[in-house]
Amino acid sequence: MKIGVLGSGQLGRMLALSAYPLGHQMRFLTSSEENPSSLLGSTFIQNGSQEIIEDFAKNSDVVTYESENTDVSIVNKIGQKTTVYPSAKSLYTCQHRGREKSLFEKLNIPCAPYQMVNNLSELKNAVEKIGLPAILKTATHGYDGKGQFLIQSDTQLDQAWESMSDVESILESLVNFKRELSLVAVRGVDNTHKFYPLVENSHHNGILRLTIAPAQNISPKLQQQAETYMRSLLDEMNHVGVLTIELFETDNTLVVNEMAPRVHNSGHWTIEGARTSQFENHTRAITETPLGDTSCTHKYSAMINIIGEQGPIDIALTLKNAHVHLYNKTERKGRKLGHITITANTLDDLNTSLDALSDFMP
Amino acid sequence: MKIGVLGSGQLGRMLALSAYPLGHQMRFLTSSEENPSSLLGSTFIQNGSQEIIEDFAKNSDVVTYESENTDVSIVNKIGQKTTVYPSAKSLYTCQHRGREKSLFEKLNIPCAPYQMVNNLSELKNAVEKIGLPAILKTATHGYDGKGQFLIQSDTQLDQAWESMSDVESILESLVNFKRELSLVAVRGVDNTHKFYPLVENSHHNGILRLTIAPAQNISPKLQQQAETYMRSLLDEMNHVGVLTIELFETDNTLVVNEMAPRVHNSGHWTIEGARTSQFENHTRAITETPLGDTSCTHKYSAMINIIGEQGPIDIALTLKNAHVHLYNKTERKGRKLGHITITANTLDDLNTSLDALSDFMP
Repeated sequence: MKIGVLGSGQLGRMLALSAYPLGHQMRFLTSSEENPSSLLGSTFIQNGSQEIIEDFAKNSDVVTYESENTDVSIVNKIGQKTTVYPSAKSLYTCQHRGREKSLFEKLNIPCAPYQMVNNLSELKNAVEKIGLPAILKTATHGYDGKGQFLIQSDTQLDQAWESMSDVESILESLVNFKRELSLVAVRGVDNTHKFYPLVENSHHNGILRLTIAPAQNISPKLQQQAETYMRSLLDEMNHVGVLTIELFETDNTLVVNEMAPRVHNSGHWTIEGARTSQFENHTRAITETPLGDTSCTHKYSAMINIIGEQGPIDIALTLKNAHVHLYNKTERKGRKLGHITITANTLDDLNTSLDALSDFMP
Repeated sequence: MKIGVLGSGQLGRMLALSAYPLGHQMRFLTSSEENPSSLLGSTFIQNGSQEIIEDFAKNSDVVTYESENTDVSIVNKIGQKTTVYPSAKSLYTCQHRGREKSLFEKLNIPCAPYQMVNNLSELKNAVEKIGLPAILKTATHGYDGKGQFLIQSDTQLDQAWESMSDVESILESLVNFKRELSLVAVRGVDNTHKFYPLVENSHHNGILRLTIAPAQNISPKLQQQAETYMRSLLDEMNHVGVLTIELFETDNTLVVNEMAPRVHNSGHWTIEGARTSQFENHTRAITETPLGDTSCTHKYSAMINIIGEQGPIDIALTLKNAHVHLYNKTERKGRKLGHITITANTLDDLNTSLDALSDFMP
């Protein structure tokens, strides 16, 4: 099939690398020929014209997107010409923190208390209702910790609101968590579901740096709980493709933080660490072919992000159990340039390799 | 780096899929935009002009080739502008069965008795010298059993020579073998060597259909023997990149049949079955980066070629331990359209999966 992708960053790139072996072809609606995916398929350079979008849609048997910040009106337009998975409904819900939270509440999925905020006075009321500390976030377009302000005292309210640049925001109560987890899953058009194990994520300056898969010391009950939340979200949105939820683990329970209607950085380990990667399973779902097995190929996997600068790649190349994935991006502070996966069957092997790659960690 | 590939079939395609994650870009000097690799990089359509070859060379930091049937004069021309790995020497040797055999003899590598043959009278003399049965093969441009004639009786000599269309040929004594094996290995510019295990190959009508990796019941001595032959060939040709030798196993010894200066169909299992695939290791070698570990990820792997027609791909997609690789080629009798890899840790699992995929076998 001809798969069209809105966007052409590293997610589209890795989607392409998984789609070619299945016999598919790739098209990218993109801003530039220089993007990570641009050499991996036909590019349609977005110039603001309707023609280019129609041309892209006509040339794609199915269209998917790389980011929840994709313009829903464009997706709707494309949806009139060809199939779009996940549907515009998933996109519309996931791109707005308020709509996301409403859905969590509707489905009885625990999440932090929150209030929508449109101005300074509403922020003050919201703080009175849910208390401090709390995080003020833009309702849309936030990623990698951008557009967030941690409020610890009433004296910060003016500054916090100012940092939001007057856009619709959400105030969320700060969750006292033990660790950050995420769950990646995929749903097919035939209503089949496949779940990867819960993984543990470590962030630095709001950016994911390390994922350990599976997360250690997770009870079957906790995995089950996460899968139950995931299943109800997938089914409610009639979602086709990969969906990711980020969760906080508190004292033996889970609180959902947010979700993304797409393959996710915390699922990159699946390229080598699972029998079918998140990219291949997303491809299988949107091309309406059977989903692949999500079980682990090794007892432990780890994913280290390469952030800002390339670092000593040769160290990774000489490690027996490491796999290097670069995105063809130039170095820039805070930018995701690639990742390294480690696979291991003992904790010792895992830790030895993590130590060897410590230069890539903050 | 910018990697240029002469040719754009499935080998170039899988080379591209392994090179992108390492941060490289691909260029293909190709006959058509419709080839398996054409969407996976920039294409330079060969139109017979010198300009296009020079343009391709100027746009490539290193150039490699997909086939031993590549024109050496083109490779030499490109070599004046940029680095070529493996060198023109490897190509020149491997593309001619006579030169190959001379090298085997020079290095004391056992191979079948042979005679070069340029006309019918030389063929008669050759038969007198080495006896029958024997195989008459074109000295160059043979692949997948094409350009071969099995001579079992003196009465077939006229017909055999006629089938060669008057081109330089080689008469080889027929080896009485137990099974066909192959060895894939890679050599880096720094004179490092990495070997995959010997694998067992089954052919039908001259075309590889099934590879079992590692070949079962191979003594360490036999593996060692094959590696010794391989090492001397790699070093003698100052070969950089992957080299494959095809061997016959006779009563507990090895006879080398032929070699190919490239990644090989019998090495496709390494994509999932080895820690570093033959494609990634070829990429690492020609980009002068450290070679990767060649050990197996599973106790058993199998590679089934998809020949002529696509077959019931969904069966493979639903098998937990199968991986599908399609080449974007249209169906045609005898054509290699793709392959399926099976990985397993027990013989039972391997055989169950092979049985499930029996529709793909001849």
